[in-house]
Amino acid sequence: MSELSDSTYHSLIAGENVPGTRGLFRATDPSTGQKTGPEFSLLSKGQLEAAAMAAGEAFPAYRALTPEQRSSFLRTAAEKIETSGEQIIATAMSETGLPRPRLQGELGRTVNQLRLFAKVVLEGDHYGARIEHPLPDRKPLPRPDIRQLKLPLGPVGVFGASNFPLAFSVAGGDTASALAAGCPVVFKAHNAHPGTSQLVGKALIAAVAEHNLPSGVFSLIYGPGQDVGQALVKDPRIKAIGFTGSRSGGLAILATANARPEPIPVYAEMSSVNPVFVFDSAAKSAQELAQGFITSLNGSAGQLCTAPGLLFLAEGEVGDSFVKEVSNQLAEATGVTMLTPSICSARVDGEKKLADIPGVHPVGYGTAGSTENAPAPAVYFTDVKTFIGTPELSEEIFGAVCLIVRYQHNDQLKAAVHSLEGQLTATLHLDTEVTEDLGAAQDLLPHLEQKAGRILVNGWPTGVDVGEAIVHGGPFPATSDGRSTSVGTLAIDRFLRPVAYQNLPERLLPEALKEANPWLLARRMNGENQPAPERRGA
Amino acid sequence: MSELSDSTYHSLIAGENVPGTRGLFRATDPSTGQKTGPEFSLLSKGQLEAAAMAAGEAFPAYRALTPEQRSSFLRTAAEKIETSGEQIIATAMSETGLPRPRLQGELGRTVNQLRLFAKVVLEGDHYGARIEHPLPDRKPLPRPDIRQLKLPLGPVGVFGASNFPLAFSVAGGDTASALAAGCPVVFKAHNAHPGTSQLVGKALIAAVAEHNLPSGVFSLIYGPGQDVGQALVKDPRIKAIGFTGSRSGGLAILATANARPEPIPVYAEMSSVNPVFVFDSAAKSAQELAQGFITSLNGSAGQLCTAPGLLFLAEGEVGDSFVKEVSNQLAEATGVTMLTPSICSARVDGEKKLADIPGVHPVGYGTAGSTENAPAPAVYFTDVKTFIGTPELSEEIFGAVCLIVRYQHNDQLKAAVHSLEGQLTATLHLDTEVTEDLGAAQDLLPHLEQKAGRILVNGWPTGVDVGEAIVHGGPFPATSDGRSTSVGTLAIDRFLRPVAYQNLPERLLPEALKEANPWLLARRMNGENQPAPERRGA
Repeated sequence: MSELSDSTYHSLIAGENVPGTRGLFRATDPSTGQKTGPEFSLLSKGQLEAAAMAAGEAFPAYRALTPEQRSSFLRTAAEKIETSGEQIIATAMSETGLPRPRLQGELGRTVNQLRLFAKVVLEGDHYGARIEHPLPDRKPLPRPDIRQLKLPLGPVGVFGASNFPLAFSVAGGDTASALAAGCPVVFKAHNAHPGTSQLVGKALIAAVAEHNLPSGVFSLIYGPGQDVGQALVKDPRIKAIGFTGSRSGGLAILATANARPEPIPVYAEMSSVNPVFVFDSAAKSAQELAQGFITSLNGSAGQLCTAPGLLFLAEGEVGDSFVKEVSNQLAEATGVTMLTPSICSARVDGEKKLADIPGVHPVGYGTAGSTENAPAPAVYFTDVKTFIGTPELSEEIFGAVCLIVRYQHNDQLKAAVHSLEGQLTATLHLDTEVTEDLGAAQDLLPHLEQKAGRILVNGWPTGVDVGEAIVHGGPFPATSDGRSTSVGTLAIDRFLRPVAYQNLPERLLPEALKEANPWLLARRMNGENQPAPERRGA
Repeated sequence: MSELSDSTYHSLIAGENVPGTRGLFRATDPSTGQKTGPEFSLLSKGQLEAAAMAAGEAFPAYRALTPEQRSSFLRTAAEKIETSGEQIIATAMSETGLPRPRLQGELGRTVNQLRLFAKVVLEGDHYGARIEHPLPDRKPLPRPDIRQLKLPLGPVGVFGASNFPLAFSVAGGDTASALAAGCPVVFKAHNAHPGTSQLVGKALIAAVAEHNLPSGVFSLIYGPGQDVGQALVKDPRIKAIGFTGSRSGGLAILATANARPEPIPVYAEMSSVNPVFVFDSAAKSAQELAQGFITSLNGSAGQLCTAPGLLFLAEGEVGDSFVKEVSNQLAEATGVTMLTPSICSARVDGEKKLADIPGVHPVGYGTAGSTENAPAPAVYFTDVKTFIGTPELSEEIFGAVCLIVRYQHNDQLKAAVHSLEGQLTATLHLDTEVTEDLGAAQDLLPHLEQKAGRILVNGWPTGVDVGEAIVHGGPFPATSDGRSTSVGTLAIDRFLRPVAYQNLPERLLPEALKEANPWLLARRMNGENQPAPERRGA
């Protein structure tokens, strides 16, 4: 059941419904395989231009907002989404098969994220304001007055992910950080949850209207990725791209962006197997550890960018007992409905390919779920030599499939780490009171730092906490640009660039750099960090 | 006369002289066109690997240095260069034709730059340390302990520029910022100043040895760009590239880096015409303004990335008088020896091409210099319509050639700005007490902010002050990555990426994130900026 009425819905370009000329489509309820909800029209490539143009036109006014204005807009956006929360969740349930508690949590995360960025914007550290006063007597040359500020890049194209219909979708992290930075957003909805996208898009558009912002600040478009998506990346008004999805999708966008007359930054979060390193001092708590592992693996049907797809375990009795425990507990686990039939079939094919590789053997399986598209979770094992010699074994299978790699000594472990590509996460499990394992972990850590964006100890990588210190990123191919994060407040930096102002009179200086500091920013002043003055009413 | 003895010199790979198997070459004294100084051997492509490998091996130990250690190494490097200063300057004079005062200034800038980064490293703000303590009672989920730190990317390949044999060469800004970030450097010398490179390279190597650092922290290589340079960009151990040079050279590097199995960031500073906007309120001080203009244009033979290649001026009597003054003063100006015969011939060809474009007319010429390769400075003019209709008119001519564009009203000016590509600088000249011009400048400023990395008022763009607030960068094609600067302390950020640490016990945490703050860093702590504790002995 969809919560949207039975009419046809369209792309929302600069506040207007724009019927697409590329045909109609409907969402699929993955638990039944049946079409669900109303019809949506797809844009043709040529229709995309209007959204990019509106974003370009909105940019000068939107970037000129004061921190208070932009912050207040983000808070309104959060409120509008919350107000439609029940309708959004019901629609998302029918379009994604995700259970209500998961979607409730995701809605909370989405609005909290917008509010967190509202706080970041108000505080204004992201402006990176630096001031160097003139030194007329400096030898051999006087120093001019030079001031530095970070400015938004321009309109950003964002592609919604399949697996988080809220937190990595219409008003998700990429949109929130781009809007916070001062960049209008043209958002290409994922076709797996068009109704959810429509509802969240309307909430954003209502916030744009309530703040009397130019309507081009936000547009939502439906269209085929290879066509309208590519046109979005190519449009000269678009100055950066945010994307969460498959490696092939991300690489296609990256290639297009690099081939533009003016190449633009692409922040594509793509592919990660999230290695977990279980030392014997942890493996001996087999029951508890196996429980945490299977929960992390099978939650959301393993359709999380940070799902543990690879687990390293020493050979020997302790490890054997842990593997046995995994096998036993896995037999009790039930498959969960996957997001779309095509994601499910890619996962099933991926598992088949894995199982057929010589030297790979099953640890055990769960049971398939009772709905459509709910394959049984599965764990396999292999030895470290086979792993290192078979690059396909480190490829991501998007779903609840994990490979356990058994090794004999720590040098093999290090060699295996070196053979890995870049990862979103790496996780260590050990009893830190056991000197041998602590030493091994200390030894491994610098290698993991070169491979991953986040390192965990005695936890599980799924469940990304949105805050100031989180990194959801990592070296290629975890992302296309390992210098940033797509979750957390640091994400605002992705959409900024520095500009210096030399000898500008006070009247021509941007507010953030005026001598009187009207925006009450913390600034770097003549080589010293200067704290923010007390904010009015704070 | 070169200050190097008459033997043959070689690439310096990880502290060792490595004779190249690709043949020998010598520098050319551009003032005579004659070969000068000793012979240097060129590396073959296959020989490059040893340098990249040594850099990769040096990386773990080098990145693990404390701020004190790395800072002290940078200060030693500055001292070693200063100690060889006289020999370096004499050699650079014979290889580049640049006059002694300019090279003395550049040497000062180079060592000051290293010392400035030593201060940055010691202060440690670039670590971007953020700490969020756990919130076990947070609803709906507890918050784990999450900490964030910026880590160096890995070994960096740097390409020396022709036009700054010291400040953008062996120990220039790219090398200094990469070393400051914790990245070993493989430096490809510009073949126009091999002896200068050898001397500065030896100074860096002496500093590496004095601090007992792994010898792979710095290598200097001689080789053909298309061959050894490309091999450097392709080497899997190299994780980022710094480059200052031509647009074609930068784009070739960018394409290679993007085509790697693991693409890497490229910071190429390439091409800029540095538009200057002269309003009538400034143009009427014709004599003084023309003097500043011609000094900026003809200094270093116009071979500065920030040389004013384009000047916008309203039509009318005030502008006409300024143009006449430029013409008169230019007649008194003498051409300066250019850096190499090939740079000179490209500049002469560029001017010919410009002069042949219909609608372009000469304002005037200086006199050719008395040496070889010292063409007469030249200024041309055209009207704004021709300018907008002829994209070639905004292409950089690397040398003392400027095009004055006359316009009738401010809308034409804005249209001309929109037609420009990205620039390193944009300069406004006006009397800010004249309301009309102030308004026009205010109106133009947001457009310039979208086009340039640095905006100046009533100054000249040449002469980039190295400090905390400078930006030497800008949108494509001024650079390949407008999100950064290649001059000033912010340049360190180019070579860093964030990593998050979740629930790490104190003993496994990096020093920068340990609870006790042993490195005395300013840190972001639970959403508040925490100033640095007083440093010992500071």
